[in-house]
Amino acid sequence: MSSVPADFTNVTAVAKANVYFDGKVVSHTILLPDNSKKTLGLIYAGEYHFGTDKAERMEIVAGVCEVKIKGSDSKCIYEAGQYFDVPAKSGFDIAVSSGICEYICSFID
Amino acid sequence: MSSVPADFTNVTAVAKANVYFDGKVVSHTILLPDNSKKTLGLIYAGEYHFGTDKAERMEIVAGVCEVKIKGSDSKCIYEAGQYFDVPAKSGFDIAVSSGICEYICSFID
Repeated sequence: MSSVPADFTNVTAVAKANVYFDGKVVSHTILLPDNSKKTLGLIYAGEYHFGTDKAERMEIVAGVCEVKIKGSDSKCIYEAGQYFDVPAKSGFDIAVSSGICEYICSFID
Repeated sequence: MSSVPADFTNVTAVAKANVYFDGKVVSHTILLPDNSKKTLGLIYAGEYHFGTDKAERMEIVAGVCEVKIKGSDSKCIYEAGQYFDVPAKSGFDIAVSSGICEYICSFID
């Protein structure tokens, strides 16, 4: 049983992708009716650090990743159907050992 | 002056990506209010063949690609702001020599 939404209705989809780490992390932005923003993304194998401005919820749509939130001592594994939250003005390390990890990133005010 | 739309409003965005060629070509699907379908995609460096069922219009959002439509003798270069059409029940070869080529694919009835 997955808690991750399959789709988002009545949104504006931005055609240009967001490209990070030479394309190892890419996403498309959607704007929801309440003006909140999400990105639908893919992370290829590798290790990456992202800083946060707003707080973020990362929902895993496919694949597996290993995550260490800034200030935490523990690394946690997340797979399809699971999510993790990152505080504002913080950051996280995320590693994908093989394949592609797909996510929905929600920005939380 | 680009003829390529920057965004699409009032659509349904599918969270799960479409992944082809081990992730060298990926896209997110959007469903428009008229029930037509588009995909917002990225093509990493390489050469790929796609068959078409419906006719397709490929609009280039970023980057450059070299395209040979099935049955055509010529290869053509397309870059951001340009598009090419592919007939139904046909196909095309597309090559990206470096970087990432981003596209909007529209399926035409």
